[in-house]
Amino acid sequence: MTGKNTLFVDMTAATMQDSQAAYGLVPDAAIAVVDGVIEWVGPAAELPAPLHDLDRTSLGGRLVTPGLIDCHTHIVHGGNRAAEFEMRLNGAGYEDVARAGGGIVSTVSATRDASEADLLADALRRVDALIAEGVTTIEVKSGYGLDIETELRMLRVARAMGKHRAIRVKTTFLGAHATPAEYAGRDDAYIDEICIPALRAAHAEGLVDAVDGFCEGIAFQPAQIARVFDAARELGLPVKLHAEQLSNLGGARLAASYGALSADHIEYLDEAGVKALAAAGTVAVLLPGAFYTLRETQAPPIDALRKHGVPMALATDINPGSSPLNSLLLTLNMGCTLFRLTPEEALRGVTRNAAQALGLTDRGTIAAGMRADLAVWDIEHPAELAYRIGFNPLHTRIFGGAV
Amino acid sequence: MTGKNTLFVDMTAATMQDSQAAYGLVPDAAIAVVDGVIEWVGPAAELPAPLHDLDRTSLGGRLVTPGLIDCHTHIVHGGNRAAEFEMRLNGAGYEDVARAGGGIVSTVSATRDASEADLLADALRRVDALIAEGVTTIEVKSGYGLDIETELRMLRVARAMGKHRAIRVKTTFLGAHATPAEYAGRDDAYIDEICIPALRAAHAEGLVDAVDGFCEGIAFQPAQIARVFDAARELGLPVKLHAEQLSNLGGARLAASYGALSADHIEYLDEAGVKALAAAGTVAVLLPGAFYTLRETQAPPIDALRKHGVPMALATDINPGSSPLNSLLLTLNMGCTLFRLTPEEALRGVTRNAAQALGLTDRGTIAAGMRADLAVWDIEHPAELAYRIGFNPLHTRIFGGAV
Ligand SMILES: [Zn+2]
Ligand SMILES: [Zn+2]
Repeated sequence: MTGKNTLFVDMTAATMQDSQAAYGLVPDAAIAVVDGVIEWVGPAAELPAPLHDLDRTSLGGRLVTPGLIDCHTHIVHGGNRAAEFEMRLNGAGYEDVARAGGGIVSTVSATRDASEADLLADALRRVDALIAEGVTTIEVKSGYGLDIETELRMLRVARAMGKHRAIRVKTTFLGAHATPAEYAGRDDAYIDEICIPALRAAHAEGLVDAVDGFCEGIAFQPAQIARVFDAARELGLPVKLHAEQLSNLGGARLAASYGALSADHIEYLDEAGVKALAAAGTVAVLLPGAFYTLRETQAPPIDALRKHGVPMALATDINPGSSPLNSLLLTLNMGCTLFRLTPEEALRGVTRNAAQALGLTDRGTIAAGMRADLAVWDIEHPAELAYRIGFNPLHTRIFGGAV
Repeated sequence: MTGKNTLFVDMTAATMQDSQAAYGLVPDAAIAVVDGVIEWVGPAAELPAPLHDLDRTSLGGRLVTPGLIDCHTHIVHGGNRAAEFEMRLNGAGYEDVARAGGGIVSTVSATRDASEADLLADALRRVDALIAEGVTTIEVKSGYGLDIETELRMLRVARAMGKHRAIRVKTTFLGAHATPAEYAGRDDAYIDEICIPALRAAHAEGLVDAVDGFCEGIAFQPAQIARVFDAARELGLPVKLHAEQLSNLGGARLAASYGALSADHIEYLDEAGVKALAAAGTVAVLLPGAFYTLRETQAPPIDALRKHGVPMALATDINPGSSPLNSLLLTLNMGCTLFRLTPEEALRGVTRNAAQALGLTDRGTIAAGMRADLAVWDIEHPAELAYRIGFNPLHTRIFGGAV
């Protein structure tokens, strides 16, 4: 454990700041940390005199990036869906799986049945794997309770994760994820009687940092999402949306009209929708794990997102059904291999753009004033993070200045 | 460190033996190990009396599989190709990459330039990641030297890996991987003047367990491979072949005619070729990492392989160009997601069928007479190994009976 006031030296820093150099790269850099916050970063040769007295920690010539940020997860959930995965590969169709109690219904009942302690223990195993990859901030959604009590329990578990581990957690209320069996065919009643009251109750308990929904033919219509977003606005909470994953219902445009932090998935987004995101300053969160698992063929409109300057983030979407992907490093590779992001875009997507997707301005780059959340890698160039598949070169994680 | 004579109890064993139960599953199993070899496995209640006196080690109710086997790797190599990966994603074409010194040429020169110690240190980092996933046997190919000295150096490093780590290594001579620059346009001369003499020299040094080649339009023709295989036969060495990856040159059929242990890749194999493999008892080694990285769309002929009873193995193909995939667990998921193997086929592919692809009869299942190489997992059902993406649930690896 290094103290919180430290001068880190002997590294190449991929600051991810805008600069002439790709990745905001600073060779032979120094990073001064005071009270867990970055006081100064730059070439070691230019270190201001007052900082020369700080205790020094050598990073051995390694490469340093901002701590990674996973801005879209469903990491708190009960059970797993390995049996369903196996059934499908043995030829079972959608109906067979449903008859066997599979699909999201099975996760909802496993989550409702799980105690707070069980949900926490299970989620901590998964988050430990992310921490081992240099992740320092994650977002966690509710959405497998679909009743007031369990939605709140999921969010309490999410908050507890940040107390049991050295990781910063942002919570997102996702009551509008699916309609539970007891409201089958009564989506509107579910929204009014459960989803919005659950949101208010969770907010009253201080459990909600943002509000999300799933806008899709198999989930909720834009008008239903709008009612949830109106409730969020009333509570002063920012919104984000699962949109245009399997079809184009205009979800991203709706989200943009509420000034959403992010629109997530967006494989089927058209250029007008991209322009709406650009105008609203909404981040596009790309989720290649679900694309891979569902064997989708339509990639998100990367060229249009680039053309209109929409910031792109990348996230695991960790969930037991469409994305049992528990590695943010692998997500970098998938973003490049499947969506043709450049390695620099991919890394920006799990650092500064992921911070923006969470409305955070105090992390995501290595810059003065930012939290000293850093990842130290046994690699020579940041492109190696996206190039390798299923290999973790993390040497050390620095959290709030502590090694 | 548990002693080598142990009775492991309190587990579910996925023995991978043929049995009524999927995965050869034995609930509440016991495994008796004497001198590093499995003496007995079965339901604990049926343990023969003479074995009751062995020291007991509880596996805590966990799931146990055979130690995993990665039967196709190029894990020994110099350098990495992250810069080339990045160039391509920034729009560079094949020629730009070649002009910048990329492609296999760059790996050949990095490998030639690397000392034995450097090659070993680099390969050990990669193999440590496999060991952490429960891998107990790997195959390692030469093929980035393409001169006599470096081909032998690669194989010496492969042998050394087995001395520095608790892992069993099988070596494969792959001089017929590519034609080096100094023989450009003179493939036949390369085969006769370098490849076959290197094979003989490596064999004389005891460095070769099998002989491989790359049969493809961009590599060697069947007639050239046949000359290498003739030399192997003369030395009494078994053969295997990279075949039908990008086109169908009849490589698998050629390999089968030499009684090859395996034909690897085989995306473009036709049904006649599948029948030839079946008749020869040749294993089909499937390499989804290269398929994924190269964004291929033609999957191997899985249905035909099933129909004709060809054993299917799965391997990482770890290499710096077409498959920088360093996870055999992720390979299981890719085998299911991309090639539609069942989780049971996938697990058989990295245990018993992988052993067969290496000509090994002393490992790959949990059965009396097999080496006590085991993997102990924090999961409830073996399907979970293929279901999760980028998550490692290994609890303990047992190598020759030692924990
Ligand atoms: Zn999601
Ligand atoms: Zn290969």
